[in-house]
Amino acid sequence: MPKKIAVLAGDGIGPEIVAEAIKVLSFLNTDMNLGLVFENALIGGAAYDAFGTPLPQTTLNLCKNADAVLLGAVGGPKWEPLAHAIRPERGLLGIRSELNLFSNLRPAILYPQLVDASTLKPEVVSGLDLMIVRELTGGIYFGQPRGVHVAENGEKVGINTKIYSESEIRRIAHSAFKIAQKRHKKLCSVDKANVLEVTELWRSVMTEVGKDYPDVQLSHMYVDNAAMQLVRAPKQFDVIVTSNMFGDILSDIAAMLTGSIGMLPSASLDANAKGMYEPIHGSAPDIAGQGIANPLATILSVAMMLRYTFNQPEAAERIERAVNSALDSKVRTADIYSEGMTKVSTSGMGDAVLNAL
Amino acid sequence: MPKKIAVLAGDGIGPEIVAEAIKVLSFLNTDMNLGLVFENALIGGAAYDAFGTPLPQTTLNLCKNADAVLLGAVGGPKWEPLAHAIRPERGLLGIRSELNLFSNLRPAILYPQLVDASTLKPEVVSGLDLMIVRELTGGIYFGQPRGVHVAENGEKVGINTKIYSESEIRRIAHSAFKIAQKRHKKLCSVDKANVLEVTELWRSVMTEVGKDYPDVQLSHMYVDNAAMQLVRAPKQFDVIVTSNMFGDILSDIAAMLTGSIGMLPSASLDANAKGMYEPIHGSAPDIAGQGIANPLATILSVAMMLRYTFNQPEAAERIERAVNSALDSKVRTADIYSEGMTKVSTSGMGDAVLNAL
Ligand SMILES: CC(C)[C@H](C(=O)O)[C@@H](O)C(=O)O
Ligand SMILES: CC(C)[C@H](C(=O)O)[C@@H](O)C(=O)O
Repeated sequence: MPKKIAVLAGDGIGPEIVAEAIKVLSFLNTDMNLGLVFENALIGGAAYDAFGTPLPQTTLNLCKNADAVLLGAVGGPKWEPLAHAIRPERGLLGIRSELNLFSNLRPAILYPQLVDASTLKPEVVSGLDLMIVRELTGGIYFGQPRGVHVAENGEKVGINTKIYSESEIRRIAHSAFKIAQKRHKKLCSVDKANVLEVTELWRSVMTEVGKDYPDVQLSHMYVDNAAMQLVRAPKQFDVIVTSNMFGDILSDIAAMLTGSIGMLPSASLDANAKGMYEPIHGSAPDIAGQGIANPLATILSVAMMLRYTFNQPEAAERIERAVNSALDSKVRTADIYSEGMTKVSTSGMGDAVLNAL
Repeated sequence: MPKKIAVLAGDGIGPEIVAEAIKVLSFLNTDMNLGLVFENALIGGAAYDAFGTPLPQTTLNLCKNADAVLLGAVGGPKWEPLAHAIRPERGLLGIRSELNLFSNLRPAILYPQLVDASTLKPEVVSGLDLMIVRELTGGIYFGQPRGVHVAENGEKVGINTKIYSESEIRRIAHSAFKIAQKRHKKLCSVDKANVLEVTELWRSVMTEVGKDYPDVQLSHMYVDNAAMQLVRAPKQFDVIVTSNMFGDILSDIAAMLTGSIGMLPSASLDANAKGMYEPIHGSAPDIAGQGIANPLATILSVAMMLRYTFNQPEAAERIERAVNSALDSKVRTADIYSEGMTKVSTSGMGDAVLNAL
């Protein structure tokens, strides 16, 4: 049976970078007889422009019936005036929620070729390889009540609710502990348990689940300290697990440590390893259409797809090795360019990976 | 009339670092005839141990009747098993709230002598001088409903509420714009308006208040991007204004850019510039009692007190110049030590500042 991939290019640089990832993946599909079929659909601002909604039912159905989703990016200033419920971002959040993709894996790996691109000193970041596990379908992103209302005294009041149940925390805990088991067996759970009761529950469930994984060393850290430690000594971390909002922030810091957010892939998985794969960077409207975006985060997201959803570790490694070879050959998109390298376009980088496959 | 300072040393390294700040301040008090009187009280874990509450009524009364509060730090593992409502942190949060200290100023300045102590490359951080204005008495830190309850299905659910009214946003906006006017006239408001309605209200009120300050250039940034930009190119910022929780995280990142969180002071002000002054670092229980903590953040907090509450800019500058001279003389506490420097104790650093006054 063919395996179906829903391809949602989205907005801004989305279409450009997804095109390169599909180029790489379709080559492997033939070469390794993977049996993958692709189907495109609109999401985000592009879907709003065409259908008046950022997540058309047809797109959602396609994703539900697919084995995996490849997403570019959504959003841009064009749609910022829109009401919240129809913003491009709601398309992305809608898929995450409707598909139950509660476990978001965001690896931050510094390629040795890119040590100079990091703003941190080489001794602080070289060899960096950490994994952030972000809860993706709960917390303040989805909690009710939410919205802006007018209070009795006539002034507007804005509300969002950070809410987690034990079972929501438990399932992301199990994801994180399992990942830590396959890595260096160190898990740091990040919360703000000294101030927020919801994260105190988070901490106690993490501790409880930890008893099932005696081989993993669990520690806890407050989010402000964790943000600071990522800048101070990021190599102290192996796996970090945290809530939706904190994970959003911490993963962008971790990304930046590796030199460019343009390098970092992500996987968002449900309980059965069905998943959505996307670069962790956004739609970068300022550079869209110029052919200068870095496609490597999306190409590496495809590698994660092959590994996690399609159980094709060999194909995944081929892509990762090819990315490494491309970097070895000194081609660089603008975001990771440094002196002595060869500057290439988005498709030039895609070709470099393709040639190295 | 004498001006009263409530001195709350608190827990961990609190007493050690506050002692150095008082040493410096009492010298100036005599030397410049400032008319300050000091009165000590317990807060946090120390208060809990003595009275069963982290914020005794006597301490609160003292603070209310004082012109300014000098605080060390609160908390430690010893008190972590306590219920939320009686944790040391609640003492600190209680004063912030009861005294209406809504405007928290957290400057991040990299001293040229400490460029090597930063984990970031010198070209990225040298000359760094930014100010974070954190809303301190609202948002998810104080929003109701909060707590952990048992749902109908028997599982525990944790809840905290991020809530801001227009007037709460408006007053912190005015604080921030006024500060930006005295600096480089650039204000970046940080929110997550693409996901959280409460921060969409935040953004619109910021924009509205901005009309009163046409000389200040206002920009908006999502919090994940702001965290990343602080690591990528921190010198792009002049003043950042943000909510309580985001400010907690971003100010710790900014602190780390300057080499050590042990260097950074803060001021928490009400509408009349009455204020609490404290280092932004915590109680560091792991090094408490060893006499190795860096007292400079607390000493610099006293300088902020002289400037903001007592309108004594000259005295403030004397302290700041003395800190600079101490650093020039190459004395360093452990956190900012690098090769070729002279390692000193907490009181050694206090003495170095005193001698340079
Ligand atoms: C686009 C936005 C809704 C999204 C998020 O906040 O989750 C993005 O920042 C991310 O990290 O994937
Ligand atoms: C100790 C804690 C309650 C406090 C906070 O989160 O506000 C601290 O981290 C700070 O930044 O002042």
